[in-house]
Amino acid sequence: MRKRLLTGDRPTGALHLGHYVGSLANQVSAQEEHDCFFVIADLHTLTTRPQKHHIARLKENIHQLVLDYLSVGIDPERATIFVQSTIAETFELNTLLEMLVSVPRLERIPSLKEMGRAAHLKTQPFGLLGYPVLMAADILLARANIVPVGADNGANVELARELARRFNHMYAEIFPIPEYQIEGILVGTDGRSKMSKSLNNAIYLADDTSTVERKVMGMYTDPGRLSADTPGRVEDNPVFTLHEAFNPDLDQFQALKDRYRRGKVGDVEVKKELARVLNAFLDPIRARRAQFERDPDLVNDILSQGTHRMRADAQETIFLVREAMGLPSYAFTKTTPGIEPVRGLALV
Amino acid sequence: MRKRLLTGDRPTGALHLGHYVGSLANQVSAQEEHDCFFVIADLHTLTTRPQKHHIARLKENIHQLVLDYLSVGIDPERATIFVQSTIAETFELNTLLEMLVSVPRLERIPSLKEMGRAAHLKTQPFGLLGYPVLMAADILLARANIVPVGADNGANVELARELARRFNHMYAEIFPIPEYQIEGILVGTDGRSKMSKSLNNAIYLADDTSTVERKVMGMYTDPGRLSADTPGRVEDNPVFTLHEAFNPDLDQFQALKDRYRRGKVGDVEVKKELARVLNAFLDPIRARRAQFERDPDLVNDILSQGTHRMRADAQETIFLVREAMGLPSYAFTKTTPGIEPVRGLALV
Repeated sequence: MRKRLLTGDRPTGALHLGHYVGSLANQVSAQEEHDCFFVIADLHTLTTRPQKHHIARLKENIHQLVLDYLSVGIDPERATIFVQSTIAETFELNTLLEMLVSVPRLERIPSLKEMGRAAHLKTQPFGLLGYPVLMAADILLARANIVPVGADNGANVELARELARRFNHMYAEIFPIPEYQIEGILVGTDGRSKMSKSLNNAIYLADDTSTVERKVMGMYTDPGRLSADTPGRVEDNPVFTLHEAFNPDLDQFQALKDRYRRGKVGDVEVKKELARVLNAFLDPIRARRAQFERDPDLVNDILSQGTHRMRADAQETIFLVREAMGLPSYAFTKTTPGIEPVRGLALV
Repeated sequence: MRKRLLTGDRPTGALHLGHYVGSLANQVSAQEEHDCFFVIADLHTLTTRPQKHHIARLKENIHQLVLDYLSVGIDPERATIFVQSTIAETFELNTLLEMLVSVPRLERIPSLKEMGRAAHLKTQPFGLLGYPVLMAADILLARANIVPVGADNGANVELARELARRFNHMYAEIFPIPEYQIEGILVGTDGRSKMSKSLNNAIYLADDTSTVERKVMGMYTDPGRLSADTPGRVEDNPVFTLHEAFNPDLDQFQALKDRYRRGKVGDVEVKKELARVLNAFLDPIRARRAQFERDPDLVNDILSQGTHRMRADAQETIFLVREAMGLPSYAFTKTTPGIEPVRGLALV
C-alpha cells in the first residue's frame, strides 16, 4: 500500500539550490516509494498579494516552477503536478473546514503575522488568517499521508492534523492524519541566512554557468582570513557548506577542507572549485530543462494531466465529505427529466 | 431591463407570519417586476452549528421552506429557488472574496458576536467571522441588484457592496453594487419582541386552524384592561397589530378598534375575530401547500431546476471573475488530446 505524499510551492519565483537540498532531492527519491503530489499554490499568494499585477506574474512563475520540477527529475508520469486554483474542490473543502476552527486558534499560528509584516500590510487580510485552513484543504483534499514542509509551515500542518481528527470525530473517518517532515535548509551565498528568494542570496536551478561563477566569486567566506596562507575556518563558511552539499566526491572535498584549514589554498581557488562543482551538478539539470523547453505544450499538458488526476481524487473526497456531513448531494438534481445537466454538477 | 433580486433564508425552521409581512409578501409582488432568486443558505447554518445532528435536520427544513415559498405564491417558473451548498461556485467566490477584506473590518460587524452568544459558543469560529463574506459571495455570484434583508443583515450587505466596489476597482467591472432594502418586522404573540422562530411567539404559515386559534387565544393584549367594558388600548396591542396586517377589510378593522377603545367588546371576541382573520388569510396558503405536498417529487424538481439556472449564472460569474483577476482558466486543460475530461472541469 503506497503512501501519498503532498508538497508544494507558491509560484513566487524560480527554485534555488536550497529548495533542492531541503526538499526536491527528497521528493525525487520519494517517487519510488510514494505517490507524490505537487500543488502549485497560486491561491496562497492571494492571501498577501491579491493585486492584479502580482497575479499577472503567476502564469510565467507556474511555467518556470514546472520546468524546475521536471529538470531535477520529478517524473510527471508518476508524480501529479497541478495548480491549486484549477481544483474547484479546494474552494469547497476550504470553506467547509473554516467552520471547524476558531479565530483564536488561527491567531496563535506564528508565521501569519510575520507574513503580513513581510508584505507590508497594515491590516491582516481575512484570507491570510485563513492561510493554514487553505493549506489544510490542499492536504486533506488529497488525503495525503506525508507532508514535507519548511519549518515555518510545521504549525500549519499541525492544524491540518487537528482538522482531520476533528472532521473524523464529528462526521466519519475520511481523512488519514498527515505526518509532517520538516525540510532541511541551506545557507545562502551571504553566509548569514538560509538561501531564500527574498534575500538576494540564492543560486537558482535555472542560473547559467557564468551567473553561478559570478555569484560564487562574490560569496562570503571566513571573515578572519586575510590571505591565502592564513589558516581558514570551514565551519560556518558557506563556500564549504555548499561544496559539501553538491560535490559527490567526498575525498576531494575533504582534501580541499584540509588545505584551507592549513592555509594552503586561496579563497579564489576554493570558490572556483565550488563554481565548478555547482555547474557540474547543474549541467544535467540545465540540459533536461532545455530539452523540456523545446516542447511548447509540454508544461500545459503536464498540468492538464495533473489537474485531471487530482480532480478525480478531489471529487471523490468531496463526495465522501458531503456524504459524511449529510449535506445535500450534488447528484440530487439528476432525477429531473428534461433538464439539461450543467457541466460539473454531477459528482457521481 | 429587469433587475435581479436576491433574498434567502437559513433552513432553520418553518416560516411564520412575520416572514410573510416583512419579506415574502414583497417578494410575491416583486416577481412581476424583478428576476427573483431565493438562496436557501444551508452553509450559513454551519457557521454556528456544524454538528452532524444539526445538519441532519437541514434536509427536512429545506423541504418545508420550499413548500412555504410555494404556498404563499412564489412561482418557481419565474423565481429561482436553490440550495446554497449545491452551487459549487459559491465556495470559490467565497474563498476569493476572503482575500479582499481585513480581519478588523469583519470584527466590526455587530451581529456576529451576538450570533456566537446565541449559539452558546465559547470561541468564535473562523467561519462565523466569515459569515458576511459568504453572504457577499451569494449576492455577488448572482450579480444581484436588490437584496431585501432583515435589519440585522444590513451591515452584511454593506460589506457586499464594499467587496463589489473593491473587486470592480482592483480587477474589472463585473459586479453591480447591490442595493439593500431593510425588511419590516411583525410583533410576536407575546407583544414584547418581533415574531421569531427562537422566541416561541410565532404563528407559522403551516400552522393548522386550531393551532392558530390556540395561539391567538393565548395572546398578550392590553394589560391595563380588567374587563370587557373597560376602554382598551389598541396601540402596542399585538392582537390589533396582527389584525390590521392580515384583515383585508379595513372598515371592519376600524369598527372593531373603535368598539375596543370604547369598552364595547371583550378580549375573547377580539381574539376570536383575529383567529378568523388569520385563518381566512392562511386557508388558501394551506390549500396550495396541501396540493404541492401531493407531488412527492415537486420540491426536488424545483430545487433541481433552480440549481441548474443558478449554476449557469454562477459559472458565468466565475468565468468573468477568474478572467478579470487573471487566474488560470479552468479551460486551459482542454487542449490536451487523449485525456478524458473530468466532469465539471470545463467552464466554457
